[in-house]
Amino acid sequence: MTASPETAPRGGEMPASEFLKQLVAVIRAEDSYGSWEGKPDAELLEEFIVTPEERREMPIIGDPDPDLLWRVEKFYDAVALLLEKRTGAMAAQMSKIHHEGFGRIVLLSGRLIVLSRHVRDIHRFGYTSYAKLAEAGEKATQDAADMVARFPEAAQA
Amino acid sequence: MTASPETAPRGGEMPASEFLKQLVAVIRAEDSYGSWEGKPDAELLEEFIVTPEERREMPIIGDPDPDLLWRVEKFYDAVALLLEKRTGAMAAQMSKIHHEGFGRIVLLSGRLIVLSRHVRDIHRFGYTSYAKLAEAGEKATQDAADMVARFPEAAQA
Repeated sequence: MTASPETAPRGGEMPASEFLKQLVAVIRAEDSYGSWEGKPDAELLEEFIVTPEERREMPIIGDPDPDLLWRVEKFYDAVALLLEKRTGAMAAQMSKIHHEGFGRIVLLSGRLIVLSRHVRDIHRFGYTSYAKLAEAGEKATQDAADMVARFPEAAQA
Repeated sequence: MTASPETAPRGGEMPASEFLKQLVAVIRAEDSYGSWEGKPDAELLEEFIVTPEERREMPIIGDPDPDLLWRVEKFYDAVALLLEKRTGAMAAQMSKIHHEGFGRIVLLSGRLIVLSRHVRDIHRFGYTSYAKLAEAGEKATQDAADMVARFPEAAQA
């Protein structure tokens, strides 16, 4: 990664997005020693950006990189927290990712599966721009909120 | 394990149980080479039996044994299949087990969590008798069936 967000931002401009703010908060919460305090938000999220050229170069065999799985986890943690802010439903994440890079990620609230995503090519998890990342997070949160609205009793059970 | 089920059955008598039949079927389905064909059912299930003495000797630190995790998985696979026979609801298993031996196992059907079990001391997974094993499997299946009856729409979503 040779991004230098200050000069020519790889991933484009950071849009104003509740999801991106939540994702940054989730990541900063893990910064126990304050070593990322001086980092701008765009830099904290830069690994979520994968350009089409980078994507082509990424191998899709072998165990997915732990850092990548960490990013996937943070993404869905942010969805869960934003969902809680918007609906009150507290959701926990579970995933089953095979080492070939496919699997399933769910967010569970009460007795309800508020979000269910089958993933393929997890090795290539990432978005071409901050705007796309924000959009994907907002959509996932909205899908989960819709499910809570559809089955409120199961979500509270 | 020094069990010899023919003479003095460790774990007691095998009761007639739909759950035990299902569990045996799940295990035999993995016997691609027929090497367990001559084994009686009680012997196939003998590792599910843990006597109080054995339990006390089991260490509860360190990564859980893969064979043990395999048995836990077969147990819940059998619950899922028996649930399907009884209610038509097809359920998939997911689990998140920390290496300290605690975690959560769920069975998911449609948008519903039909079964949710928080586990501790997974290192000591097992039952003192075949009767207790059968009872635990029947109870889990019944709990799941009750949940399907309570939220049928979410289970079919």
